[in-house]
Formats: sequence, C-alpha cells, structure tokens
Amino acid sequence: MAEIDGATIIAKSLKSHGVEYAFGIVGIPVRSIADAMRKEGITYVNMRHEQSAAYAAGTIGYLTGRPGAALVVSGPGMTNAISGLGNAWSNCWPMILLGGSNSSDLMGKGAFQEAPQLEAARPFVKYGMRPESTGRLPFYIEQAVRTSISGRPGPVYLDLMDDVISGTVDEELIKFPPPVKDAPRPVVDNASVEVAMGALQSAKQPLVIVGKGAAYARAEDEVREFIETTQLPFLASPMGRGVVPDDHPLSVGAARSLALQNTDLIFLIGARLNWIMHFGEPPRFKEGVRVIQLDISPEEIGSNIPTEVPLIGDAKAVTGQLNAYLKEHPWQYPEESTWRTSINKKIEENVAATAPMLVDDAKPMGYYRALREIDDLLPDDGMLIA
Amino acid sequence: MAEIDGATIIAKSLKSHGVEYAFGIVGIPVRSIADAMRKEGITYVNMRHEQSAAYAAGTIGYLTGRPGAALVVSGPGMTNAISGLGNAWSNCWPMILLGGSNSSDLMGKGAFQEAPQLEAARPFVKYGMRPESTGRLPFYIEQAVRTSISGRPGPVYLDLMDDVISGTVDEELIKFPPPVKDAPRPVVDNASVEVAMGALQSAKQPLVIVGKGAAYARAEDEVREFIETTQLPFLASPMGRGVVPDDHPLSVGAARSLALQNTDLIFLIGARLNWIMHFGEPPRFKEGVRVIQLDISPEEIGSNIPTEVPLIGDAKAVTGQLNAYLKEHPWQYPEESTWRTSINKKIEENVAATAPMLVDDAKPMGYYRALREIDDLLPDDGMLIA
Amino acid sequence: MAEIDGATIIAKSLKSHGVEYAFGIVGIPVRSIADAMRKEGITYVNMRHEQSAAYAAGTIGYLTGRPGAALVVSGPGMTNAISGLGNAWSNCWPMILLGGSNSSDLMGKGAFQEAPQLEAARPFVKYGMRPESTGRLPFYIEQAVRTSISGRPGPVYLDLMDDVISGTVDEELIKFPPPVKDAPRPVVDNASVEVAMGALQSAKQPLVIVGKGAAYARAEDEVREFIETTQLPFLASPMGRGVVPDDHPLSVGAARSLALQNTDLIFLIGARLNWIMHFGEPPRFKEGVRVIQLDISPEEIGSNIPTEVPLIGDAKAVTGQLNAYLKEHPWQYPEESTWRTSINKKIEENVAATAPMLVDDAKPMGYYRALREIDDLLPDDGMLIA
Amino acid sequence: MAEIDGATIIAKSLKSHGVEYAFGIVGIPVRSIADAMRKEGITYVNMRHEQSAAYAAGTIGYLTGRPGAALVVSGPGMTNAISGLGNAWSNCWPMILLGGSNSSDLMGKGAFQEAPQLEAARPFVKYGMRPESTGRLPFYIEQAVRTSISGRPGPVYLDLMDDVISGTVDEELIKFPPPVKDAPRPVVDNASVEVAMGALQSAKQPLVIVGKGAAYARAEDEVREFIETTQLPFLASPMGRGVVPDDHPLSVGAARSLALQNTDLIFLIGARLNWIMHFGEPPRFKEGVRVIQLDISPEEIGSNIPTEVPLIGDAKAVTGQLNAYLKEHPWQYPEESTWRTSINKKIEENVAATAPMLVDDAKPMGYYRALREIDDLLPDDGMLIA
Repeated sequence: MAEIDGATIIAKSLKSHGVEYAFGIVGIPVRSIADAMRKEGITYVNMRHEQSAAYAAGTIGYLTGRPGAALVVSGPGMTNAISGLGNAWSNCWPMILLGGSNSSDLMGKGAFQEAPQLEAARPFVKYGMRPESTGRLPFYIEQAVRTSISGRPGPVYLDLMDDVISGTVDEELIKFPPPVKDAPRPVVDNASVEVAMGALQSAKQPLVIVGKGAAYARAEDEVREFIETTQLPFLASPMGRGVVPDDHPLSVGAARSLALQNTDLIFLIGARLNWIMHFGEPPRFKEGVRVIQLDISPEEIGSNIPTEVPLIGDAKAVTGQLNAYLKEHPWQYPEESTWRTSINKKIEENVAATAPMLVDDAKPMGYYRALREIDDLLPDDGMLIA
Repeated sequence: MAEIDGATIIAKSLKSHGVEYAFGIVGIPVRSIADAMRKEGITYVNMRHEQSAAYAAGTIGYLTGRPGAALVVSGPGMTNAISGLGNAWSNCWPMILLGGSNSSDLMGKGAFQEAPQLEAARPFVKYGMRPESTGRLPFYIEQAVRTSISGRPGPVYLDLMDDVISGTVDEELIKFPPPVKDAPRPVVDNASVEVAMGALQSAKQPLVIVGKGAAYARAEDEVREFIETTQLPFLASPMGRGVVPDDHPLSVGAARSLALQNTDLIFLIGARLNWIMHFGEPPRFKEGVRVIQLDISPEEIGSNIPTEVPLIGDAKAVTGQLNAYLKEHPWQYPEESTWRTSINKKIEENVAATAPMLVDDAKPMGYYRALREIDDLLPDDGMLIA
Repeated sequence: MAEIDGATIIAKSLKSHGVEYAFGIVGIPVRSIADAMRKEGITYVNMRHEQSAAYAAGTIGYLTGRPGAALVVSGPGMTNAISGLGNAWSNCWPMILLGGSNSSDLMGKGAFQEAPQLEAARPFVKYGMRPESTGRLPFYIEQAVRTSISGRPGPVYLDLMDDVISGTVDEELIKFPPPVKDAPRPVVDNASVEVAMGALQSAKQPLVIVGKGAAYARAEDEVREFIETTQLPFLASPMGRGVVPDDHPLSVGAARSLALQNTDLIFLIGARLNWIMHFGEPPRFKEGVRVIQLDISPEEIGSNIPTEVPLIGDAKAVTGQLNAYLKEHPWQYPEESTWRTSINKKIEENVAATAPMLVDDAKPMGYYRALREIDDLLPDDGMLIA
Repeated sequence: MAEIDGATIIAKSLKSHGVEYAFGIVGIPVRSIADAMRKEGITYVNMRHEQSAAYAAGTIGYLTGRPGAALVVSGPGMTNAISGLGNAWSNCWPMILLGGSNSSDLMGKGAFQEAPQLEAARPFVKYGMRPESTGRLPFYIEQAVRTSISGRPGPVYLDLMDDVISGTVDEELIKFPPPVKDAPRPVVDNASVEVAMGALQSAKQPLVIVGKGAAYARAEDEVREFIETTQLPFLASPMGRGVVPDDHPLSVGAARSLALQNTDLIFLIGARLNWIMHFGEPPRFKEGVRVIQLDISPEEIGSNIPTEVPLIGDAKAVTGQLNAYLKEHPWQYPEESTWRTSINKKIEENVAATAPMLVDDAKPMGYYRALREIDDLLPDDGMLIA
C-alpha cells in the first residue's frame, strides 16, 4: 500500500492531460510540485518573475492548444501572476495557474502571505477552485484543464493549500480520470455554409479578415485553400498574421485602411470586431458593412455590429466545410475587379512611399531603417516587416 | 427634433429584441420603465416580492427562449432578486434583471439605497454592466439580451442609474440595433453522428436520459421520433419531464433506480450528470458506464465522469441529425431483450406496490392518497403523478 | 472520550459569545444546528422566509449589541438572506449569517444547491469564511462574532459545509476560546472635548443631531443629560428617534426643515450625513455649515462635507465625557435666543397646520386621520406620530 | 471663464491633500496626469514596472502617513500593480492607485486593454470607485485619500476613464474640498490605562513587543520613554525595528525564542499576533500567555489568542498616556530579576555563537561573513545586522 503525495498527484494529473510545460518561481509551499513535475516529464522552467511565468503559460496554451502551467507561491507570488491571467483571459488562451496557499488549519489567522487569492483570480478565469483535500486533486485538475480548452479557451486557477500539496493518500484509492480529450471542433449546418457562400458571392467588395481564432485552430491549410480558391482579398489581424503569409498576393495588409473603409462585406475567420478592428464602425468601416462571422464563441456573434451570417464553430473545421462546398460549387471572385485593382494600386503606392525610408541611411536613423536591419536578420518566411 | 427618454429607450429596445414579459415592483427610480414597457406593448406584471419577479422572468426565459425581464428598485429591491438570478444561473435560463440605482452624481455619498449591486449580481450572471449614459442604452440592452440567449443561456444584469433612466436624447441621434436573432442551433459533424449511433448499437443495456436542455430546445418532436424509431428506453430528468409523456411505454420513470444501476451506456440529451443524476457515479450507476453526451455547453462535456462520445450542439438540431441518419441506416433496439424485460417487470412491481396506497382511504391520509386527489383534478396529458 | 459534532460546537460557541437569538428556515444540511441551538439555550425562531430571518437577526444585533444569528440552507436559502445582510451592512448592525453548503467532497460536481455563496455574501460582510473542518469551528465563530461587534458593527457570514456540520471531534481536543467581550467604548482626548465645546459655544444657531449610533450605544441617559444641560435644540434621525423622546421641549422634529436650513453648526451624535440628512448640503443646509462629528467609524469623519471637530468614539462614552466637562465648565445655550424662538414659532405653526387634519373625520379618511387612530392605540411614551 | 481638465483636477486635489509623491508608468490615458502632477509640484517618478510603482507608493504611505500615489495605464498596467495593493493591504499602509481605463463610451465594446479593473482591485482595497465625471473628481479623491489614512490605513483605488481625465469643466464651478486633515490619534480612557499598568505590574516575565503600528504612528519617543521608564525588556517585530534601536540594552532581539517562550505577559504596541509572531501560540509562546494589546484596529483585538487588556488607539498617543500615568505612579520592572538575567545570559550566548561566524574569513564565504561586510558599510545607527 504505497502512499502518494499531493505534489506528485498534481504533476501526474497535469502530465496525463497533456500539460507539457510549466513556468514558475518556487518557494513555500510549491517547491515539491516543481520537483514532481520534472520527475513526471513535464518541462519545468524557472523564471525570474511570476508575471513572465504566467505569460509563458498562456503563450504555450495558444501555441499548443493545451494549457501551459504557471506555478507560483502564495501572496505576491500569486498576485504577480494576475497580469498573465488577464492576458490569457483577454486573448482567450488556455492556461492553468497553480497558486500555493497556506495550510488549511491556518486560514484566517494571518498566515504567511495569506491573501484572498481565489477572489483575486476570479475576474479573469473561466474556472477557479481551492481543492479541499489531496485525494480530490485529480478531479479538480481534470476539470480545470478540460474547462480551459473547451469552447472558447481561457485561463483557470487552482489554489493549492500547503497541506493539500504535502498530504498523502493511498495510491490504490486515488482515481485518475482518463486524459482530457481534445475538444471536438464544432461545425455548422449545411444550410449555413450555403448562406455564407451566397452572401460572399453577392458582395461587391468582400474582404476576409483572418484572426487569432484561425491561428489557434491551426487552420492555416484550410484558410489558404479558401483564399486561393475564392481569390478573395484578405487582411490578417495582428495575432492572425502568419496563418497565410504576409507576402501572399491576396493580402491587403499594405492597404489596410483602404480595404476596411471600402469593403461592403467582411468575412471574419476567428477575428473580433474589437478596438483592433475599430469595432467594425464608421469611419474606419462603411456604415452598414455586412458581416459573416465565424467564431468559436456564440456570445461573440453580433458584438458591436450585427452579423448577417453567423458561423459558430471551429475555424479549421468550418473553413474546411466551405472548401468542401466550393469543390462542389466552384466559384471565385473575379480577378479583374475594381475592388482588386484599387487595393493593388494602393498597395503599390504605400510600398513606394515606404521604400525610400527603408533604405534611407541618414542619421539619426529612422524608424523604418531599423526595421530593415531586423528584417535582414530574420528568416525569409513570407512575413513582411513593413 | 424630438427627445426620447431612457425609460422609453429601454422599453423599445427590449421589445424589439423579443422581450415580451416583465415582472417587477416599481418605485424610485424605475417606475417610468414599467410605464414605458406597457406603452410599448410589453406585458408588465406587478408582483408582491422581487424574488418572485425574478423567478418569473427566468421561467419565461425557459419557456420562450427569450429572456423575461425583472424590474426592481435599488438596494433591497435588487438584492431580493438575487435568488431569481441564482435560479436562472443554476438552470441555465435566459433572463434580464433591470435594477434601478441612484443618480450617478450621488455615487459614493450614501445615496438612498446605494449598494454594490453590480458586484452582488456578479457571481450569478453571464453579463453585468452599468450603462453610463442614456444614449448608449440600446447598445447595452442588445448585448445583454444577445448574451443571455447565446450558447448556454443564462441571466444578465443591467444596473440602471436614475439619471440614465430619466435622461433624454435626440431621437434622431439614437441608434437602435436590429433585433437580436435567435441563436443558431449548433449541429455536430457527420462523423460524430455515426460514432454516436455506433456506440448506442454496441450497448447491451442502453438508456436515454432526457433533460431540460431538450425541453429548452423544444426538441419534443425529434426526441419522441428518436425514441420511437430506436425503441430505446428513456428516463426524463425532473425538468426534462414532458418532452416525451411519462406514460410512454418506453419511459422507465417507474423503475428509475433499476434502470440507472444497470445501464451500460447512457445517452444524455440535454441532461447533466449533477446531483439529480447522482453524478453518474456508483453505486447509483455502474462503474465505467459509457456516456454519449449531447449538450449545448462544451464545458459540460465530461463533467464528473468521462464522455465517450461528445455531441456539442442543440438538442433539437442534433437529435434531428440522428433521426436523419436513422432514416438512411435503420436500426432499433430489440424489443425482446433482457434489459427491456427486466425494466418492465420492475415497473409493474413498483406500480403494483404504489397502487394500494393511491386508493387507500384510511385516515390520517397518506402521501399517495393526496397525490391521487391532485391527479384527479389535473388534465390527462400523459404525465404521471406517481 | 466523548465525541462532539459540528452542530453542537456551533451552538455552544455562539451561546458562549452571547448570541441568544437565532432565526431561520431549516433543511439540509442545517437542521441539526437549529436543534443544537435549542439544546444550548439559544432562542431559535423558525421563520417563513430567509429574508425575514436575516432582517430579524440584524435587528436583534441592533437592539442588543450582540449579533443575532440567521440560519439558512444552501443555494436559494442563502441568497434569500442577502437582503438582510445588505440591511445590516447599510445600517452597521452586527449579525451572523450561517449558510449551509454541500459536503466538501462534492464541491465542483454540481451538488444539491451548490452555489458561490461566499462570493455572494462578500459585498455586504465585514467577514466571510468557509470553515474547512469541524475542529476549527470555534475559531471561526469567535472571529466572526468578535468582528461583527468590533469597531463599526456589521454583518458576518460563515459558510458551513455539510460534513463540517455533521463531523465529530474528540471533546477533549476541542478548544473553545473564552467569550468575546464587549468591545471597549472608545473615548476621545481631553483636548478634543474642549475644542468641541468651544465650537458649540461659538455657534449662533447650533443643532444637535441624534442618530442611530447613539441608540446602538445605549447613550440615552448621556444624550438627554447633554441636551438638558446645554439646552441645545436637537433633531433625531429616523433611526435615532427615541434616544430622547419626541415630545421633549428641545426637540425640533416638528420644524425639521427650518432647523436644518438655518443652523450654523451641527453636532452629529452617531448620525451620518447621507441622503437622510441631505448629505449636509445646500439647499437643505447652509453652505459652510460647521460640523462636530461624533462617530465610531474613523472613515465616516468628513464624509460629504468637512468636519471641523472630529470625535471618533462611542456615543455613550464621549457624550459622557462632554457631560463631565460641562460639570466643571458649566454652560448653556441661552433660552431667550432668536434661534430658539424662531424654531418654536415654526413648530407651533406646523402643529397648528396639522391639528385640523388629525381631527378631520371627513370621508374618505385622510392620512393624518389614520395616524390619529394609531396614536390612540399606542402607549404614551413620548413619541409623536405627526 | 477658464476651463480646467481632469488631469489637472486630479493633480491639484492630490497635492492639496498632501500626496507629495507619485510613481508610475505613463501611457494612454494617464500621461497627462503625470504632467499635471509635476506642474502642481508633486514629485513624480517614472518607474520600470508598475509593480515597483505600487510598492513605492505604499512605502511612501508607511513612511509619511500620507498615501503615495501609483499611476498606471489600463489592463496589464493596472494588474501589474495589484501586488503593490496587496502589500499595502497586508501591511495596512495608505496608498492610492490611479488606474487609467478606456473612455466611458467604449465600455463593453472590447476597447483597448479594457478589463474589470475595479473588481480586480476589490479584494485588496478599503475603497475603490470609478468616478463618472470630471466635475466630481475632487469628491472621489478626497474620499479616497481620507479613507486610506483613517482608522487602520490601507490602499484605495480609483479607476480613471479616458474621457474623465481629458474632460474639462469651468474652473468656477469646480469645488475643491479643504485638505484632508491628519486622522485624530485615538486615545483610551483612564481606566484602561490603569488596568493595563496593573496587568504589567502583576506579570512575572513581561515582554513588550513593538510592531509596525508604533513605527507608523511615529511613536519612537514615547516607546523609548516607556521602555526606559519601566525597564521592561522588549522585542521589535521585523517591521517594528528601529522604533527603539536594536542595540538598546533592553532589546531581547538576540534571545527572541527564549523571550517569547517564557514570557507570561506580552504588551503588543502595534504588533499583530500573526505568523510573524507564531500566532501567539504554543510551543512558541506559553499556553495562556496574557496579552495587553494596543492597536488602532478594533477588529484586531483578540485575534488568535484572547486579549486581557484591549487598548484601541494610536500607538503614539496611548503610549504617551501610559508615560503620563507613570509620571504620577512611578514604577519600574526590577533590574535584578531572573527574567532579565536569563534573557541577558541567552543574549550573551547567542552573540558568542555568532561572533566567530562574523569574522570567519574561510572560503567559500559564509552567510554571516557577508553580513559583516554589509554592516561595515552601513552607518552606525544602533541597528544590528546579526
């Protein structure tokens, strides 16, 4: 009858659910968790500040679709990580913050770094709990990981009391739930696909906007196929850049303002009409611009301006549905259109305006000149620096 | 240039978004809202207590798919309504609580019934805001109504300051967004339909559990067709009762315990494995019971016990997909099975055990005897009282 | 080695700290607490609604200086009691809400009436905790009771999990802290007494305002002595009525508006300058009215308008200090002053204006006529009905 | 009719209330506040991270008794400052966090760095508000500053919307309240002084514990006089060090454990029995150790172990009262006591044990050796390094 301690249960649970990376600063009472993580094969990186640990955990979540973990001590350790929670909350990235707290039998006594950590995390998390016993840690970790990647992803928080971490239970009695599976990729019904395509085809000056939802869904193949099949001009949001390379001939990045101001229909693929996209409002957009909105979150549909065609689903899966439809109902936006021509003209003008600044070696050095130096050092991956 | 006041804007907005019923207790500063509601054709019912107003609003939301409104004054008026928010939160029902609050220029001064209302609502709402101006009321109301019915439904809260309600704006300048459309009914992909049907067909003692998600989705036709086509035994959760009548020959209601304890696979249609369903755990369920889970909420999938086949979607739409599949791939659960036989035997036993109690006229009157009296008075709608 | 259960520990603890009255509605999991309360000699009153239970608990706190207890079940039971918490929060009354919650091992599973109760209580309580074990209940109850009556009083909340209530510990091991003593009555330094008296004596048209802080402190003897010694006119706030009877010749109640508008210095005895007192602002007060403020709460001093003389302390103790000073430095406000004369004249006018309405037997019956009937039935205790 | 903008109003208000130092990182929308602060004569220091800005603001509050200000941008700017709020909350230090937020007309739209900042600050602040208009900024700032220094000090938060900062009002219409006065120093009644002195005189092995409350109150003269008059041994808490120098002959710092374990009565001067003081519990203290507790916070009295003599008041004022009493009733603890002898013996032993380590030049360098180097560089101010 072997005993297993809380730290090991935490590490084993996280590992079993695909949490491969953790970032943190150890101390009382979480040191043993870092040790157990390493033993279980989780890559644990010791950081200099809890803020960066939490940012790293969120970033890992964005890149891999499984939450990165941030491991912090109680009190200031935990509060230092709140910005990382906030970043993941705002970006809709999965991550799990593991915050140490004092032993349950010291609660309310003014224990070392005792603080209302759960309430401090609350505004920014999809899920926040304080496991009350060592034996139920697997339950909470499964729930936390699962919640963080289900639906619209987001950060979760577990408040880990000293005695829960160091407590032990009989290994035979502990029940590890099976690994959290990847969340299913929601699709839309066929009618919606047809309506969406019909709307696109009825538009005079359509524009596809590719956002971070497409990147998170790893929809690069599908989005590129869709763009190239339809020959629709597209704009990447800052976080949606790289889904299709910047130097793609259909990218309107270098004529962003003109494209936004003149399009009569936008197709949002995992992009939000928040401040980054000027809320979809005049004068940056035309009054009454039509919207096809593909988003994982039902609550996002129609935010700020009305959506004509809602496509609630996964960017990869739904764009794939559109591609399948296009195979059966081939269509492409005419290459020789005023829309395409005017965009391309503006791109040429903007590039021409920028070019001299890039090569201008005058001193003091200008902004663009610095970018050129950086560009020269970066690999040639289709991403533009200006 | 006509002026329009906040109360009228609120009423017009709600009405335009399909909010047809409101319940409340008026007073400072919300009386004018009730008046405006009536003028705009919203059925406004004056209640005796804010608690019942909020419960009624949630119930309307459940029955109609559009939030009912509860209208309350500040301070105790608002806090009295919290139980109704909690009920809607727990049941996942759309509703909108409209709480009056003091004028913005009295904030922090100890105004009449000044209280932290937004924070008091927070634990129970999907969305809670305090509109800062009369002119932006249409924005907030659209967002509130839309959020309450999108994805998994739930309650929302708006904190309405006296001066925002009584303030006026030029009618020409105010922008009413178009009516919030019904949320699309999410479907699943064809592969998932096939996997779900395969799982069902592989089960020895399958059981369909019909929950309130099916009722909310108005999936009664689809669920009944599915049950009758497949001839699968089903259990209604307390709130799922009525989707298919209790006296349906496939209902296992009168042998609930036996059915739950012995099934090897449950198909949840909008039902949760919470306390009502004993968390899906032994001894009320078999260890390792397999689960097909149809739910609108991705976060619900896998709660408490692992899900073998997740079907994230609308109960009506997805059950319809299963029915369509069954048309092409006909299948039914064998009528002459040990499973069906044992359930029916238990039902007969239970009915036989209850029957004498129903007719027992001994005094003092027993529990079942009372039920009989009630039953005699109720219409014959297929619902059983015992 | 006898075992003692959580319910008994709770009841014994409350009783030992002077909690003599409890109000509630029992059910899972708090029934045993009500039973234990009765066994320990606490007067437990079963109510019809949790709201009234919580209001009653707060009122007992106000009347006795020891928190009344409200005992409620989880979920709606607890949320129904929030208005009572809010009332006690707003009035600064001690009370303790005891809310049942599900067993710790069901947390997060969707247990019966599981709800974020601690967070729901938070906006309204001085102290809110969820005891994690049966053995530490005495610690939390002592802390809760002590906090509720220390400094400015207020409500506290304890979230009581089923297993903590029903759990048992060895009686020998449990440590009951000694009874919470009455909070000391803070006094002010002698210099402040002198400054306050100097300010009063320099005023032309001074007015004493007696608030609920004086009532809570049971300062009736001291306030009456002060009023009668100084011959200063006084006004009772709605909750401060009864500290000195309404029919006292120095009461300005029947000339409230005139008194407030014309006084050049107010001496607040446990009264706040909130909406009840028109924030101390014009036009209801003179611009620049001087303020002597006697209040238990340091944070209250200077709210809304500046305080010339702060007296942070207990209304009974500090008024007693003033009385002692007056014994050594006798002073009284001149009886024959324009201020007194004008107030008395206004009182006479108002009484004369009201008198006919009190005796008017016309039908339908008027407002004042109804008051007369009530007045006739009430004991003659110096309180005026109009 | 000159106009004045929000930023200037904020700076003028803070300056008028004695806020002399601000620390921050500027950006949208708070840059103009930093500029205005400098113009108004507030020392504004630009920092590298908001965390240190907030820590600095709290420290200034501790050192000067007037809140330091921290000025941060919205979103991550504000959340980065939460640890500083937490530090000030835990230490009971006055500070004011000024967090920028987006324009009111963008609320709810996904504005730049929009975040629930007020709710994020809530767990750690005495006061948190979002001023709704430029004109009422003076009200909120007065209330914030006053609350932060009244009673037990603590952090406060103001959420400053872009349009409130940049908005303007007619200078004639804006009302600046008079400067917030220093909070009165609460005293105790004479009876309590006598009871406290009686308790001290009845103790066999008394110990004075000097905490940060004494330092905050600038009670160094009074505490030293009290110590030297009574000849009582004393221990400084970590934050209470320096009130009386470490090298004072009555300091028991070098025999801390022995002193705590053997004292039969402790006199806490602004020190808490939290983890730093082992909760006042065995085995670090004797079971049943008697307590005289001088604290500004009524709620602190009796925390963790019962208080025999509560002295709720200001450390400087109340220690002064004790000194005055001692002038009339001279008393001192006998120099030739077993208690003093045993402490001094232990100090000698500990110093002897440490001495060789301080001068040990072996390599690798030891812990104490490093301390010696530092000590050599520090001024000779009576503070011991080991």
